[in-house]
Amino acid sequence: MNDLFPANQGKKATIDDVAALAKVSIKTVSRVFNAEPNVRPTTRDRVMAAARELDYQPNLSARRLAAKRAFVIGLLYDNPQSDYIIAIQEGALQICRQYGYHILIHPCTEEPAGLVSEAVNLKSQGMVDGFLLSQPISENAALIQALEQRNIPHVRISQRALGGAPCISVNDEEAAARMTQHLIELGHTRIGFVMGHPDHGSSHDRHDGFQRAMAAAGLTVNPDWVEQGLYNFESGYSAGRRLLAAALRPTAIFACNDHMAMGVLTAAHEQGVTVPGQLSVCGFDDTPMARYSWPPLTTSRQPIHQVALLAAEVLLKRIRNEAGGDQSHLLHCELVRRASTGSAPG
Amino acid sequence: MNDLFPANQGKKATIDDVAALAKVSIKTVSRVFNAEPNVRPTTRDRVMAAARELDYQPNLSARRLAAKRAFVIGLLYDNPQSDYIIAIQEGALQICRQYGYHILIHPCTEEPAGLVSEAVNLKSQGMVDGFLLSQPISENAALIQALEQRNIPHVRISQRALGGAPCISVNDEEAAARMTQHLIELGHTRIGFVMGHPDHGSSHDRHDGFQRAMAAAGLTVNPDWVEQGLYNFESGYSAGRRLLAAALRPTAIFACNDHMAMGVLTAAHEQGVTVPGQLSVCGFDDTPMARYSWPPLTTSRQPIHQVALLAAEVLLKRIRNEAGGDQSHLLHCELVRRASTGSAPG
Repeated sequence: MNDLFPANQGKKATIDDVAALAKVSIKTVSRVFNAEPNVRPTTRDRVMAAARELDYQPNLSARRLAAKRAFVIGLLYDNPQSDYIIAIQEGALQICRQYGYHILIHPCTEEPAGLVSEAVNLKSQGMVDGFLLSQPISENAALIQALEQRNIPHVRISQRALGGAPCISVNDEEAAARMTQHLIELGHTRIGFVMGHPDHGSSHDRHDGFQRAMAAAGLTVNPDWVEQGLYNFESGYSAGRRLLAAALRPTAIFACNDHMAMGVLTAAHEQGVTVPGQLSVCGFDDTPMARYSWPPLTTSRQPIHQVALLAAEVLLKRIRNEAGGDQSHLLHCELVRRASTGSAPG
Repeated sequence: MNDLFPANQGKKATIDDVAALAKVSIKTVSRVFNAEPNVRPTTRDRVMAAARELDYQPNLSARRLAAKRAFVIGLLYDNPQSDYIIAIQEGALQICRQYGYHILIHPCTEEPAGLVSEAVNLKSQGMVDGFLLSQPISENAALIQALEQRNIPHVRISQRALGGAPCISVNDEEAAARMTQHLIELGHTRIGFVMGHPDHGSSHDRHDGFQRAMAAAGLTVNPDWVEQGLYNFESGYSAGRRLLAAALRPTAIFACNDHMAMGVLTAAHEQGVTVPGQLSVCGFDDTPMARYSWPPLTTSRQPIHQVALLAAEVLLKRIRNEAGGDQSHLLHCELVRRASTGSAPG
């Protein structure tokens, strides 16, 4: 069965072989493969090179039995945006690989009752060692309570404190205020806002930031220019149509995610409103599509990859009872100026 | 620990409780939870309702030990397009839930040597029962060979036959010919083509379909109007710029995926070329962004969800030694006409 591994024909490499080739102790090889702390990077590299040369793979079944761990984390999510989920998966996997863990995906399309018992059972049946919760499922109180009561390790990606688990947050309020300020600096005073899904904490934070920056500049928020959206293209398109149909219309529209901003752009194109000549449009998130829209979209770059790295790292430290496993983190966005925003029409 | 399940306070529901409440035998409950065939839908529904009412959860650890199965499939992929991967994950999960299986994600960013041994070890260590391979990793000969030689169950999503495993394919050639015909019917004779990544079989199939339809209509393919792309926005943008800079330029450009077509649109917008007035543009895949572009993109809808459903179903039947586990399937695309294609300029 080893015929495809010419470096090691007929015989499976053992931990002793790796230790001998890397000139380290068996204990050190074990430490490297269990991703334990306090191994020097050069030592780690030497062990990994030896393992690769010998095609050594640690015996995970034995490792799982001995450690009473699955070496798998569960990723719970209910966000429909592919780019967001893939970025979270990629970031979390990057850390998991370092620690010798795998990821089991568990999108939550079930009603809350089913969701809670499914998650609890994944843990009790030894399928996973803990959960990484992305937004907005991370704000589901029944789920958080169930995980807390059973001491199931979990880390939340969220702006909202809920329970005692560590939380990886992005300062949406600050970033939305900064974006609003950008529009004001361009001379806009008639600024519309498209809110996101009411169930997402981020939508409220972004709206708060908008209001704060408007107030700080002494500008009035016209309630007719604040539209409720749902974080999708269609709701942005409808909001854009309504805002552009007003007798006195805004000269800038801040849609608080990129999908809705794309909808506003389409509404403007359809009505022959030039962007940014007659109307500035900006979004939020810096999804890949922000670069592909016409004109390319001014937006606020969410550090999603960094959020996922931190969330996975804190979770694995929590599972392994290491320092840092109870640490929350607050990250910041970056304003990305592209061609969809410009000076207010004279 | 059961305090959050008021329906079942203090005592865990057993398979006997479920059988009693559903008025079926224990064997039938077991058949339902193992997703075995030949259970009547009404019986299945009654068992599931009873299980939900009692908050019964089958003991997966015992089930795994008894069956010598992980009840997990591994999803291998190396396609960078989020929408594609998420659609594959969603479709596969839909089937896995029916069968009581979970999905472990394994993006393949490693070099081929590492990839093969990682996959083989996931199986030999009991982490997964088999693999679903999406494009283009499904065309990696070394990986397929290793899986075959070890009898590791796998199903490939691919247009290319490789080894003996079942293959879920989409008729890209036919769909590309149909799209080309659409442009010809609009009166276009000067048609440019942007190829996809040379390592993806789909790119060659789509190019073949384009050439076949041009030949069938008695039209010549101008080699200056065929550009090499990489399936991403940037390569489409560059190709679009080159095509639009030609002394005699095409009146239609068929970019063989949506990302590249969006790049062509941006190149056209930048140069003030109106779409579809002076230039028709079409893509392929019908990603969500095809609806969000300006103008909305004419494209060919890939049945990705259906592909994923079939791939997961065939794989699970293969793992469970059921009929249909060796069945390949060929699916078809649908032309979706939107505003980016129109009559050839007079």
